[in-house]
Amino acid sequence: MSDRIGVGLLGYAFMGKAHSRALHELLRLDPPLVPELVSIAGRDAKQVEAARARYGWAEAVTDWREQVADDRIALFDNGGPNAMHAEPTIAAARAGKHVLCEKPLGRDAAEAHAIWTAAEEAGVVHMCGFNYRFVPAVRLARELLEAGELGELFHFRARYLQSWGIDADPSWRFEKEAAGSGALGDLGAHIVDLARYLVGEPVAVTSVVRTFVDGHEVDDAFAATVEFENGVIGTLEASRLARGRINQNTFEINGSRGSVSFDVERLNELQVADETSFRRVLVTEPEHPFMSFWWPPGHIVGWGDTFTHELHHLLTAIAGDSNVAPHGATFEDGYRCAEICDAILRAGESGRRVAISYRERG
Amino acid sequence: MSDRIGVGLLGYAFMGKAHSRALHELLRLDPPLVPELVSIAGRDAKQVEAARARYGWAEAVTDWREQVADDRIALFDNGGPNAMHAEPTIAAARAGKHVLCEKPLGRDAAEAHAIWTAAEEAGVVHMCGFNYRFVPAVRLARELLEAGELGELFHFRARYLQSWGIDADPSWRFEKEAAGSGALGDLGAHIVDLARYLVGEPVAVTSVVRTFVDGHEVDDAFAATVEFENGVIGTLEASRLARGRINQNTFEINGSRGSVSFDVERLNELQVADETSFRRVLVTEPEHPFMSFWWPPGHIVGWGDTFTHELHHLLTAIAGDSNVAPHGATFEDGYRCAEICDAILRAGESGRRVAISYRERG
Amino acid sequence: MSDRIGVGLLGYAFMGKAHSRALHELLRLDPPLVPELVSIAGRDAKQVEAARARYGWAEAVTDWREQVADDRIALFDNGGPNAMHAEPTIAAARAGKHVLCEKPLGRDAAEAHAIWTAAEEAGVVHMCGFNYRFVPAVRLARELLEAGELGELFHFRARYLQSWGIDADPSWRFEKEAAGSGALGDLGAHIVDLARYLVGEPVAVTSVVRTFVDGHEVDDAFAATVEFENGVIGTLEASRLARGRINQNTFEINGSRGSVSFDVERLNELQVADETSFRRVLVTEPEHPFMSFWWPPGHIVGWGDTFTHELHHLLTAIAGDSNVAPHGATFEDGYRCAEICDAILRAGESGRRVAISYRERG
Amino acid sequence: MSDRIGVGLLGYAFMGKAHSRALHELLRLDPPLVPELVSIAGRDAKQVEAARARYGWAEAVTDWREQVADDRIALFDNGGPNAMHAEPTIAAARAGKHVLCEKPLGRDAAEAHAIWTAAEEAGVVHMCGFNYRFVPAVRLARELLEAGELGELFHFRARYLQSWGIDADPSWRFEKEAAGSGALGDLGAHIVDLARYLVGEPVAVTSVVRTFVDGHEVDDAFAATVEFENGVIGTLEASRLARGRINQNTFEINGSRGSVSFDVERLNELQVADETSFRRVLVTEPEHPFMSFWWPPGHIVGWGDTFTHELHHLLTAIAGDSNVAPHGATFEDGYRCAEICDAILRAGESGRRVAISYRERG
Repeated sequence: MSDRIGVGLLGYAFMGKAHSRALHELLRLDPPLVPELVSIAGRDAKQVEAARARYGWAEAVTDWREQVADDRIALFDNGGPNAMHAEPTIAAARAGKHVLCEKPLGRDAAEAHAIWTAAEEAGVVHMCGFNYRFVPAVRLARELLEAGELGELFHFRARYLQSWGIDADPSWRFEKEAAGSGALGDLGAHIVDLARYLVGEPVAVTSVVRTFVDGHEVDDAFAATVEFENGVIGTLEASRLARGRINQNTFEINGSRGSVSFDVERLNELQVADETSFRRVLVTEPEHPFMSFWWPPGHIVGWGDTFTHELHHLLTAIAGDSNVAPHGATFEDGYRCAEICDAILRAGESGRRVAISYRERG
Repeated sequence: MSDRIGVGLLGYAFMGKAHSRALHELLRLDPPLVPELVSIAGRDAKQVEAARARYGWAEAVTDWREQVADDRIALFDNGGPNAMHAEPTIAAARAGKHVLCEKPLGRDAAEAHAIWTAAEEAGVVHMCGFNYRFVPAVRLARELLEAGELGELFHFRARYLQSWGIDADPSWRFEKEAAGSGALGDLGAHIVDLARYLVGEPVAVTSVVRTFVDGHEVDDAFAATVEFENGVIGTLEASRLARGRINQNTFEINGSRGSVSFDVERLNELQVADETSFRRVLVTEPEHPFMSFWWPPGHIVGWGDTFTHELHHLLTAIAGDSNVAPHGATFEDGYRCAEICDAILRAGESGRRVAISYRERG
Repeated sequence: MSDRIGVGLLGYAFMGKAHSRALHELLRLDPPLVPELVSIAGRDAKQVEAARARYGWAEAVTDWREQVADDRIALFDNGGPNAMHAEPTIAAARAGKHVLCEKPLGRDAAEAHAIWTAAEEAGVVHMCGFNYRFVPAVRLARELLEAGELGELFHFRARYLQSWGIDADPSWRFEKEAAGSGALGDLGAHIVDLARYLVGEPVAVTSVVRTFVDGHEVDDAFAATVEFENGVIGTLEASRLARGRINQNTFEINGSRGSVSFDVERLNELQVADETSFRRVLVTEPEHPFMSFWWPPGHIVGWGDTFTHELHHLLTAIAGDSNVAPHGATFEDGYRCAEICDAILRAGESGRRVAISYRERG
Repeated sequence: MSDRIGVGLLGYAFMGKAHSRALHELLRLDPPLVPELVSIAGRDAKQVEAARARYGWAEAVTDWREQVADDRIALFDNGGPNAMHAEPTIAAARAGKHVLCEKPLGRDAAEAHAIWTAAEEAGVVHMCGFNYRFVPAVRLARELLEAGELGELFHFRARYLQSWGIDADPSWRFEKEAAGSGALGDLGAHIVDLARYLVGEPVAVTSVVRTFVDGHEVDDAFAATVEFENGVIGTLEASRLARGRINQNTFEINGSRGSVSFDVERLNELQVADETSFRRVLVTEPEHPFMSFWWPPGHIVGWGDTFTHELHHLLTAIAGDSNVAPHGATFEDGYRCAEICDAILRAGESGRRVAISYRERG
């Protein structure tokens, strides 16, 4: 019988729903710690109560400070909007709670650095919610890379394209203060994290960053070149203005002995090339990552299930004797991602290649 | 606040897991009736207790008769092996419980007919677990067909191909007594049901049915032609011996004004042709079937989620004042499917076109 | 320096154009015999003269008998409509000319048998124009099969779908006397030939054959099951009424160790599965069939180029000391294909499995 | 009856073969001027004679100056290696011959500018051999863009990936003096030209350019961002080191009302998105570009056929009363492409955004 861990969740929108669902799902997956859904927090009392009832939380609170002060809560899960990442996460960490914070960790590198530093100083387990690390096909790509199957690496190219920005109603997502950046922080951060997870540390970028739509304060799109410490070169792009692309989060890695290619729209497939051609691997075999949780081969998992994998991994780390969840993005990863995103913005403004330097933790 | 409904589940293997997960998931999806997981039944006391704990059931029982006798249970969910479909389902219906039974309903048409008749006589809501009706892309295909978007229909072709049968260990799935049939009842039944759901009533088949692997008592594969009441012609195929095909459950319908094509391996996509070309529709938009339960566009659902849709539909029917769940396969659908599968077997044996006649309920 | 061979071509429409182009193309491909384009024949004097000028023939004639009597002609190439296959081809063979005849060889098996017998008795080289045998990807599939790469074979399924028949103007192609059959002889004959070329001899079929469009005398579509001598089972389908399918001539073969899949719409690709997954082979490498004629890897060939391969093969056979072109369909292959097509028609009419028996040559 | 035009071809390797084939093919396609194949030039007497015989040229010469001096030749077609582009092309133009020169026009912008200037001063028709403008699917994309079907344009991204460079033997293609650049001039030039043909004039680039393989003097790969005069932003990439990519020349354009996407490996397909989804257009319908030359729908054309389209277009321009072939790349286009490629090199070296300025002709 596993020990229990009390969880407090901040946020009841998109991420609140995704995290709640995953926590419940875990109950059926023999988790290393059994999550107890103590409370959900949100500013609007009526809405947070509705969310509580719907998503199966014991209590609803309108101030996250109540969660920080709540001794029953050992894991603070921050699924709030970007502007609500720093203060509550730092406070929770300082109160000794393990912390999961959605991406982007901060609205810029400085904010992310502060969050990371606080969590490290508090000695808690911390994870930034880059859920695409927990896609079975992405994990399989990582395993192939770790095993050296692709040989010496030459190229990484990724793009994250959506189309809803063309006709979108006004939203905090288009405001500088609330969102920090636009396509860059929302979509670009995901592919920057995958770049680091799969290939290594970026050392320089050039870019063009653009706001096309009247009234938007943040970028609608960017395009960048990227150089990695290990010599790999490539491109990064994100846009909210790509008709026909609904959620095309795609990458390709080319090495001397093979390549891999992936697209979130076909979440359960990994294209794997050897020295001659690409094969389509349906990542649903028993030996494939995370598949022990699920179904027989060929029965695909959904996007929402990546959060189940992510939270399982986090609870494994918490149950262990380390404060590192090796496959999860730590807050250091969240900070480094922010550093790269900032560099992309600066490169776009200056027209120069921006060398990326990562700060030590404060 | 919705009323509650007590559920008893028979079976703790593949389907037991899928149904349990969906019942829990429903709790977060504002169900018309709130499922209460009363008991799970299985013959092996140790295993059923493990399943109980893992899948979140209140009690474990080793005899389904306890569930039939249990007044707390209003819905009997039969996810057991094929040979355990008839007796428990009939008993539960006669005890006044609504019944969900996995496919194939019976091991042959006669058995399926008996189950259907019993449920009808009992006046309970009955549904046969053809979960592919609850794939968003399949439902969208149905909507397009109902709206006449494809014009006069000409062709239906479907195949369900897997490959695990080549190297498989011995299993009840290869035994005549336990399974009834092989690829036909296991895979073929799904495409037969989709044929009926999407196109209409088959009236004749020809076929070739084959056992390739030594030691298998049931068919490894079949290929059939099919004619429908409305003049449509086409093919049906299933095999457990198709290398490279992991779970390719695919169909295509051609009409005078357009076509649709689908493959379970790309569960969230529907290929839709007008008079010139096919477009790839990612069936994840807010207006698409079942998407109100889920995520923003482009964030795909998984195979397991189809059971959530299915059970939501069943509970809606039970909560209503009819004993029909219009999109769910009723036991009559389960029976008719069995009648067609039997006709495919007979056509294979006789080498003749077999006209399909459906019996009235007994 | 190669010897020359005089060629006479009957027909100046679709096939006349394709064959003429291929004969000219051969001049640049170091052919074993250099084709000399002696004359082109057609009934309409004005049109045949225009075709002569356009397609580069020395003379135009309005009666194919002139070609049969022309000593300069050693190869009679029959690209005329179906009803013009038998008499001219037989006459040419009896005049000692090598003969190439477009498919279907005859309008039925009896006619095809007569053509085959005449050619054999004359001792000339004969080839039936099943050009898909000369697609590089199809030849590669054959090579893989010959090498045993797919293990024991289980399934063959093919379909040939077009959509132009829905809105088509009246044409000889819809008339019984002129065409013999519809989708069956026009499209089905191609996949029947590929079935024989790749898998082996069919021994039985069941089918449904249907005319949907008012005014058509021949079949618009058929669907059939097929059994082969070596135990393989599968399906064959063709239709002129499949919206969105422009020229989908596709097959798949499943064996115990692997599978192959092909579609004419992606002419240069062969999908090849081993025991786990499909890889996409772009059949343009130097070691791939026919690629010595063409370009560096990745530079695809067109449909028209298959005739170049076909005619090169025929001239190689003529230049050799045998009257067999091993990869080309002989007239015996043309006859056997017709026998199978007739069996499909009879099976459709009778509703029975029709065992296929092939006649010896007369 | 069309007038004749004498042609002299320099080069007998890859491009010599492709151009020869196209010139012969044209004879069957009712060309506005009938090409007469006067002479082929190459340095090696034996090889050029073999090429003459194989490719159907009347004479072979070992010095292109003979062609420049030959009054029978009105079109000088330069298919030689990069280092042989400038001098012969300029001489031919000054001798009053129309000139077709393969890409890249010069080894750098200065050389390309000189060639352009000479041709303009001579008043001859000039075309640079960017054959991908003559792919039916690419022309269709251009037609959609001209018709405004995509609305306001936001993004262009293109990459041209091959893999042969990893294991390649030494070749002039890896030498600075002979080739000018590597993947950039060989592959990148094609996508730069398509960018200009489809979207408009680039005004700035940033880039990273890299030589990975020991012994190579030129770039193996580059990645760049690009900004266009009309505000469009995007990426350009080329590599000879991308395993599994054989000849992936692919682009995508996103606009406010739709998108198009293309890949040379599927030469006959254009993916066209409206505001919701992508459709796969098989560009083989009678109304599609160049299809009047070819076959019924669904019968694809090959890569080699693009040269036939290109030369037909050039001859149409020569037969007309203008010195412009509107869809062909002129030498000005060849020069501008070189200017952009040079800018990519400089941006890679400097780490700065390089503004592109085009010189007037000298």
